[in-house]
Amino acid sequence: MEAPTHLSQGARRSADQAIGFLMQQAVENPGCISLAAGLVDERSLPARLVRDAVDTLLADGESGRRLLQYGTTQGPEPLRRVYRNYLAELEGRSDGLADLPLSRMMLTTGSQQLLSLIVQAMFDPGDICLVAAPTYFVFLGVLQAAGAEIIPVEADANGMRPQALRGALERLHAAGQLGRVRLIYVVSDFENPSGVSISADRRHELLELAQSWSRESRIYLLEDAAYRELRYEGTAPPSIWSLDRNRETVILAQTFSKSFSPGIRVGLGVLPEKLLKPVSDLKGNEDFGSAHLNQHIVAHALKNGSYRQHVESVVASYRSKRNAMLQAIDKEFAGLHGVTWVRPEGGMYVWMRLPPIVQTGFDSLLFQQATRVNRVMYVPGELCYPTSWNDRPRCEMRLSFGVQSEAGIEEGIRRLATAVRTVFGRISGGNE
Amino acid sequence: MEAPTHLSQGARRSADQAIGFLMQQAVENPGCISLAAGLVDERSLPARLVRDAVDTLLADGESGRRLLQYGTTQGPEPLRRVYRNYLAELEGRSDGLADLPLSRMMLTTGSQQLLSLIVQAMFDPGDICLVAAPTYFVFLGVLQAAGAEIIPVEADANGMRPQALRGALERLHAAGQLGRVRLIYVVSDFENPSGVSISADRRHELLELAQSWSRESRIYLLEDAAYRELRYEGTAPPSIWSLDRNRETVILAQTFSKSFSPGIRVGLGVLPEKLLKPVSDLKGNEDFGSAHLNQHIVAHALKNGSYRQHVESVVASYRSKRNAMLQAIDKEFAGLHGVTWVRPEGGMYVWMRLPPIVQTGFDSLLFQQATRVNRVMYVPGELCYPTSWNDRPRCEMRLSFGVQSEAGIEEGIRRLATAVRTVFGRISGGNE
Repeated sequence: MEAPTHLSQGARRSADQAIGFLMQQAVENPGCISLAAGLVDERSLPARLVRDAVDTLLADGESGRRLLQYGTTQGPEPLRRVYRNYLAELEGRSDGLADLPLSRMMLTTGSQQLLSLIVQAMFDPGDICLVAAPTYFVFLGVLQAAGAEIIPVEADANGMRPQALRGALERLHAAGQLGRVRLIYVVSDFENPSGVSISADRRHELLELAQSWSRESRIYLLEDAAYRELRYEGTAPPSIWSLDRNRETVILAQTFSKSFSPGIRVGLGVLPEKLLKPVSDLKGNEDFGSAHLNQHIVAHALKNGSYRQHVESVVASYRSKRNAMLQAIDKEFAGLHGVTWVRPEGGMYVWMRLPPIVQTGFDSLLFQQATRVNRVMYVPGELCYPTSWNDRPRCEMRLSFGVQSEAGIEEGIRRLATAVRTVFGRISGGNE
Repeated sequence: MEAPTHLSQGARRSADQAIGFLMQQAVENPGCISLAAGLVDERSLPARLVRDAVDTLLADGESGRRLLQYGTTQGPEPLRRVYRNYLAELEGRSDGLADLPLSRMMLTTGSQQLLSLIVQAMFDPGDICLVAAPTYFVFLGVLQAAGAEIIPVEADANGMRPQALRGALERLHAAGQLGRVRLIYVVSDFENPSGVSISADRRHELLELAQSWSRESRIYLLEDAAYRELRYEGTAPPSIWSLDRNRETVILAQTFSKSFSPGIRVGLGVLPEKLLKPVSDLKGNEDFGSAHLNQHIVAHALKNGSYRQHVESVVASYRSKRNAMLQAIDKEFAGLHGVTWVRPEGGMYVWMRLPPIVQTGFDSLLFQQATRVNRVMYVPGELCYPTSWNDRPRCEMRLSFGVQSEAGIEEGIRRLATAVRTVFGRISGGNE
């Protein structure tokens, strides 16, 4: 008789995450055009640039070898200085953000590691996180693994609604739960999955709410700015982080995975003072610091201007792909009553809503029809809401224009419209 | 009035770890010769080799760009095949370990990430880990952060004593605690800090104990083989992992940080079947997989033979440094009564024991004398025992020959002997 394996509470809560199902579906449906994968376009990746960077960085043996040594848990200070200059440029700060102590910055393994560390540092089971509805489903998985209670807050075309956030906080206060609220999580620009950005006014309001409701314990605001550089039209509002004058409320999470390369795994975080040591201690336990060489590769590209050039070309390419997807949707979905979608100004996603009668989940008629018959895959929208929310919408889809070529996007949308029409016909007309 | 920041239990337990104190001491005593840092010799790092590898890997745009895309959480399967061939060679398995499913292998951010993931996957507060005494102090910190109960098991010149392990298990059984034992942790070769290797006989016995005491729940054995390739004399015993026929008890943790480059951050784990999914789920939450490009860099060096050549040169260099340290100790400590030390066959550490009356901790007379007056730093041995063990030895030191040149090692040992002699004089002779 074999003795059973004991797993920790955290490991048990980590099982059966949406991302796992999704990847399994991708494997099981290899012939599909994927509008599901949230990956960047492989053709955009800077192979030549990285090769040249490494060639230069390792040309001199002595200085080169230093990059192959450990860095530090947060990333070496001279490197953080380079990343601070980059952040200053993004923020339009001509003073180079000289007043931001380098100790507040941390280089991570993509921004995902920072999201995970923040949750590890702040959440015990039952602690509360408020999230936009819908939101980034992988982060929901991280929260779920920590045993967090996740409370969805209504969002619209301008992002999370401050009034809805206030209402949620008031209800928690009335229920004696305010002291368990740790975090408000938002993807500020071209949200994954909804494609919407938080308007400038709301950025101020959301921050102010986090601050004014920090009564029993500090409520932090985690600004996931993963997509901020992928803007195809319009003007960027200031980051929420930049509005936080004393820098004690907002955690800023950025990554070079979307704008540069996910295989390099470099993320950049800026933390309130009180979270620095706990997050750094946890990171030290996890890895002693992320890959040092890779931090130098990105810094090299930042310093010599090749990063900015690269982002420009990436933005131009994704702009065309977004346009291709929106044009295809305009054309293919025009006659379909009750279907609406968001026109994102950036990012990688179009969020589509079908009439509530048409469900989109893994076990829905539409998902089966789309993947098995019409050979196209999307991310079911319901994954982007907390599973604890029974009334979550089940008729939405996240469509990514990241991976496919323009031709692939057009064909994918054509197939998807066919699948939707077929299911519409079955539902409204009974058996065909 | 500012609202307090709430930290998770895990974050609170992560604070004030030994490694933090140690690094602070290094910063505060910049003029010291460090025999404390457990880093590899920077001069050994393969700058040329990595540069050539990247040059080749990224030469072709299309295949090159693939390496800058995400890999997978465990690392792509074709890559794991390359690492399996490498492991087969280490294990002397001419069949290429073809019977080891690739799904059992995982590429991590150094081996540290695997150690951390294993603890996260298995430990709830109060769960028990048995460790050799002394043991790798960073791992003690990881266990402490998880709220684990750490039980030290006596070790001698042949590693952890099976009889002591049996005794500990019997006591836990008698106390009704056997069901809370999750893990036995050993560094099998040239242990950090003690320098000893577990003898072949004991490898069998320790494995057999883990298996036969897996009654209420499975007791895993984590074999940390970080140093196995750094052997300077003698013959390698089989890994404990290789003795585990059904591969359901031993977790093997290896790294390329010591043999190749810590700044690349590539580790290799082999896991029992029952731990695969939990550990992979947790890793997915943490980072979606470690840096893909870096996994290819190491694989490239493994495939073209340059890795093996590099290890040979590294081993030759560390052998000379070990010899330099042992010769210097023989000379400088010859007249010091009651001082003993281990002659390691590999690795990076010499473990020294002083008479019990001479304490070595951060606040000891010796540490002050060594760092402030004689300008040499070591790792106090007491850090390598669980802090919960009140009777832990306090008169030991870990001396590393990793970082310093041979001349630096000789001078460092000379200074250390001077400091020890001074403290001996004060203790035995009262005030000077």
